[in-house]
Formats: sequence, structure tokens, C-alpha cells
Amino acid sequence: MKANSELETLIDLMAKLPGLGPRSARRAVLHLVRKRAQQMAPLAGAMARVAETTRECLNCGNFATGERCAICTSEKRANGELCVVEDVADLWAMERAGVFKGRYHVLGGTLSALDAVGPEELRIPALVERVAEERIREVILALNATVEGQTTAHYVADQLEGRVTVTSLAQGVPIGGELDYLDDGTIGAALRARKSL
Amino acid sequence: MKANSELETLIDLMAKLPGLGPRSARRAVLHLVRKRAQQMAPLAGAMARVAETTRECLNCGNFATGERCAICTSEKRANGELCVVEDVADLWAMERAGVFKGRYHVLGGTLSALDAVGPEELRIPALVERVAEERIREVILALNATVEGQTTAHYVADQLEGRVTVTSLAQGVPIGGELDYLDDGTIGAALRARKSL
Repeated sequence: MKANSELETLIDLMAKLPGLGPRSARRAVLHLVRKRAQQMAPLAGAMARVAETTRECLNCGNFATGERCAICTSEKRANGELCVVEDVADLWAMERAGVFKGRYHVLGGTLSALDAVGPEELRIPALVERVAEERIREVILALNATVEGQTTAHYVADQLEGRVTVTSLAQGVPIGGELDYLDDGTIGAALRARKSL
Repeated sequence: MKANSELETLIDLMAKLPGLGPRSARRAVLHLVRKRAQQMAPLAGAMARVAETTRECLNCGNFATGERCAICTSEKRANGELCVVEDVADLWAMERAGVFKGRYHVLGGTLSALDAVGPEELRIPALVERVAEERIREVILALNATVEGQTTAHYVADQLEGRVTVTSLAQGVPIGGELDYLDDGTIGAALRARKSL
């Protein structure tokens, strides 16, 4: 192993990925070396291209290849709805669900006094600007149902009060969820938000 | 997501790695995109270099950057001991243990009638040649303690009979092993190979 330092460098770099450790990084690299031509070279190429071309959309904070991301440049997505998410992973999750047809605004985190993350760090002023400029009818807060996410949601709602309709994702029993395995908080929220059939 | 096809290609390629699925590949790619300069570009570079330079050592089957690997070209490792392993992962495991000072011979798998893997596919003729040419005193079979590994070990031992001393790794209780959690086969092997204190 020490003999081939390039292999070792590669394993060390792979081991830094989330979800991989030294052992699984070795396994992945072994697999790749065995499939150098079919898998390793294309993966290296794809990674280099993404590293070179990807940046943040100046408008919404999504990943983009140009100044604005594909969603911000698509006229079809300008339906007056703006979905506010914490980060790009959440935007991807919304897109996978395939039910939201408007545009996004990625905050880039949540407010945190401890970590000194204020509104300026979170693209919240940019959100207020967009609401004024882009003829937004409704801002949908799709922040995580955590304390930090909800604190941020309340702050954002305050900032936008009187300018636009602000809604947030419904809370309740997840599809396929079994009551026996749900936490008390979720059951309580689902009961409070009960609907007539 | 569909918007940025290069990102999607990268995620698809990452998801093919052993131990990663679509979900963890997305997580890894998100992490990389956030650290484009510090982690993604170096990783892409390291991967491209390894894909380009790594090949199989013509002598032993280990990964090498030239025709022969660093172990085969190191004179210090020519101590007359040759350790036979199934694949490069096993060679790495032996090297990590740091107790073997000789050279290796990587078979590249195990004999398998079902998969039509015969001695020719396994670098076994090359092993017999090396034993004659490299003044080997002892061949240590470090094959996996599986049915396939042990079948292959017996075949290799037959081929080398009368030409060189052939040994194999000891079987027994692993260091830190608790009898209660060991399988019957291991306990049996450890009892049969018991030593006087």
C-alpha cells in the first residue's frame, strides 16, 4: 500500500466523503481500479467537469452551470410561487417529489445565535428583494421541522408580513407511517391539524 | 435536478460504487460540490491519475504504476518467502498487518467449476514459474478460509508439491474473539490446532 502513493492519496480523499470511512473507501477504490476504463475514467471526468462548471445561482442559491440555474431561467417555473428551503439537498428532495412547479430560494442554512448565523448570512434580504421584484404571490416555507428550521421560518414570515402570502408545509402523519412508531410531537401536530372527511 | 445533467451524471456514477446507493451518492456529491476547490478538484485529479497510471504488476498481479509493482522491484522484499493471496484487497490487508516481509503473488480469484475459473485464469502457472525462477524457499498460502479459498489452496499446494515448502495461515480464535460469538467450525479448528503453553 505505502508503495503506491497515488492509490493511497485517492483512498484518503475518498475516505473524507460523508458515509465513507477508510474501509469503504478502500473497497470503492479497489472496485474502481478494477474497472479503470469503464467506471474510473468517466467518474474522474464527470467530477472534474462538475468541479469546474458548478457554482451557486446568483438568484436563488441552487447549483448552476451559469450565473442563474435552470429553474430560475425557465419561464415555465415563474408561476408566482416561491419555495424557501434550507439547502440544495432540500431543493432536490422537493424536485424529486415533482409536485412543486414554481421557483426556489435556498437560504443556505438556518438562523443560529450560537454559530453567529444571522439573516445576512442566509440570503434572507435577497428573498425580501425577490418577493418585491418577481411578482411573487405566495412564499411557501419548506424548512425542516426542527427547532432551528421553525425558528428561521418564523423570522422569514415576520420579514415578509404584509408583502405576500406566506404558507408552510403541512405537518402530520407521513404517508405509510404507523402511529405506533411516530413520536408524540408528530401525533400531536396531526391531531391539531385534523381534517373533516 | 434534471436541470443540471452533469450533476446527475456524477451522482449516477457515484451510486455505482460498492457501499453507495442513490441516496448516499447524492449526499457525497452535495458535500463535494460545497467543497469544490478543497476536495472535489483534488479527488477528480487523483482519480484521473490513478485511472491513467495504474495497471497490474506483470510479476505478481498487484497494482503498479510501471511494469512491476513497488514490492516486486524492492530488493529488500526478496527474502525467499512468497505469500499467495486471492486478490489485491487481501494483499493490502497483509501489508496493513505489517508482519510479512516477503513478496506476494495475487491469484486474482479462486478456482470455480461453476464460473469456469480454471488454473489458467488464476495466475497459477505463473506462480509455479516464479517458484522455480525466484529462489523461493517457502510459499505461504493466505487464501480466505472459505470453501473456495481452501479448495484453491489445496490445488496450489498440489502443484507445488516437492518443489518448495508450502504453508498456510493458522486457523483459530481471532484476537479479541469471544468463544460465545464464534462459529463451531472456528472453535473446532482452534481446538484441533491447540498449543502447549
